[in-house]
Amino acid sequence: MKDCHRVASAIKDMKIRGAPLIGVAAAYALALTAYNSKAKTKKEVIKEIEKSASLLKKTRPTAVNLFWAVDRMVRKARENTGTAKTVAKAVIEEACKMADEDVETNRKMGKHGSALLNDGDVILTHCNAGSLATVDYGTALGVIRVAWEQGKKVSVIATETRPKLQGARLTAYELQQDDIPVTLITDGMVGYVMQKRLVDRVIVGADRIVRDAVINKIGTFGVAVLAHEHDIPFYVAAPTSTFDLAHSASEVVIEERNPDEVTHFGAQKIAPNGVEVLNPAFDITPMQYVTAIICETGVLSPKDLERHAKWKT
Amino acid sequence: MKDCHRVASAIKDMKIRGAPLIGVAAAYALALTAYNSKAKTKKEVIKEIEKSASLLKKTRPTAVNLFWAVDRMVRKARENTGTAKTVAKAVIEEACKMADEDVETNRKMGKHGSALLNDGDVILTHCNAGSLATVDYGTALGVIRVAWEQGKKVSVIATETRPKLQGARLTAYELQQDDIPVTLITDGMVGYVMQKRLVDRVIVGADRIVRDAVINKIGTFGVAVLAHEHDIPFYVAAPTSTFDLAHSASEVVIEERNPDEVTHFGAQKIAPNGVEVLNPAFDITPMQYVTAIICETGVLSPKDLERHAKWKT
Repeated sequence: MKDCHRVASAIKDMKIRGAPLIGVAAAYALALTAYNSKAKTKKEVIKEIEKSASLLKKTRPTAVNLFWAVDRMVRKARENTGTAKTVAKAVIEEACKMADEDVETNRKMGKHGSALLNDGDVILTHCNAGSLATVDYGTALGVIRVAWEQGKKVSVIATETRPKLQGARLTAYELQQDDIPVTLITDGMVGYVMQKRLVDRVIVGADRIVRDAVINKIGTFGVAVLAHEHDIPFYVAAPTSTFDLAHSASEVVIEERNPDEVTHFGAQKIAPNGVEVLNPAFDITPMQYVTAIICETGVLSPKDLERHAKWKT
Repeated sequence: MKDCHRVASAIKDMKIRGAPLIGVAAAYALALTAYNSKAKTKKEVIKEIEKSASLLKKTRPTAVNLFWAVDRMVRKARENTGTAKTVAKAVIEEACKMADEDVETNRKMGKHGSALLNDGDVILTHCNAGSLATVDYGTALGVIRVAWEQGKKVSVIATETRPKLQGARLTAYELQQDDIPVTLITDGMVGYVMQKRLVDRVIVGADRIVRDAVINKIGTFGVAVLAHEHDIPFYVAAPTSTFDLAHSASEVVIEERNPDEVTHFGAQKIAPNGVEVLNPAFDITPMQYVTAIICETGVLSPKDLERHAKWKT
């Protein structure tokens, strides 16, 4: 993709997806704007970057990494005291830095999180929070990868994650590539596998973590309630760039996507014409269902979270 | 279908599905065996019927109506004191009687259950327990139909019900035909709609009701736990032929179906080659999550159930 518009479309159409990856892709989109710019003055190039930033912020409303990354890039541009060219250079370097940081962050997260996993554990995950949702390595799958690299014989149950099947298409694929044992189930089978005590832990990613809740792929809340009911630890693995602790769940906008994602499977229609559809892309898991949050700075209990927020700022 | 083998295949392949419909279809399959029989003696025709009965019982292990219907037909044949011809006649008549009874049962169930629904209620249902799962009218959808016919402006949220999408393909279709408002969601959206207080009640069917649990389509247990967590009444609508109160949940065999149902969508592959899959067709909802059971004799609380069992026998 050679310009910001293409990246913005790819984010909107979920060709690029996963909160951390969306953030870094948006940063590179702004780098492309700076790289392609014919502006003569610093003021002009910043204006172009701000315009691109505004376009990117309209693509998807829920994941907070997008806004975090875009704001960081715009700040970097504005802070630069040089010419149009030095602004562009600084912005491009910042995007590259964010990409490297993302991988580093995931490895740290994986190290912290892997301490929670025992040899032989079966981990249920929902959607895809792996290398295909990040620059590399993954958040939830990063934790599993570190445990696996440490020689712990963990295995994974992956929910297919309707409507877009990220679990079947991405998570199952990624884990197969790494030879980590994976079993695919439909979203409706979570209760069954937990009742049969086939699951030791749940680890999911997050699109936004607010004061009182975790916002993640639709279906996460149901998994969390079932985990709670079965006394199975429910972990969220996400970088601190996902944190939005100034806000609470009631303030979050949940993206509603095209009904076709539910009524069609590729070109194949699977529901009668004209049927009413709901298609929220995310749901809200209140903190009471969350055992801990795994981030690059360590493992936080929901109670630690606000303390951590204060410490970070 | 002109012989028992074809009916047995159709049941196995889920071309005929829904516990009550499977029962009546199996009865007609035995009627076909009797009708096609060239047996000269009563003993011979009964032997043929018993052979067909054994074939039918091997098709699907979980729904109890199948066994109930087959046993009732075999008993009818054995009880007959006449010739091979009168046995065949009695068996054919019994199948027709069972079909009529099923519709009558559903209408009675609907009448009892509709008293639980208020004007304006939104009812969530899982899978298909409608006219396409019975001879006509439906169990869970029968209750909704009676309420609708009484002028109550109810509406329905239907889960698509992976892997076989009975909710999207059958329930949404049936309700559209009756002009009852229906909204389709994926299975992972149940928590979301309940958290948003978009659901007033849940009504599902059942494949088997044992002393301590309801066995129904995979995903039902998750819906029940979420309903419980949100204080939403969870009703099961099923004829007494679904009752198997001599047994408990631990004794029930849960059918495991072909992994292709999960990894393929028609001809379209949706998961990587060789991925491990679980595909249980049903799950087990312990009675603690069930508000009431709606059957043709009335509305029973889980506590009433054992009393009812004694009264029936």
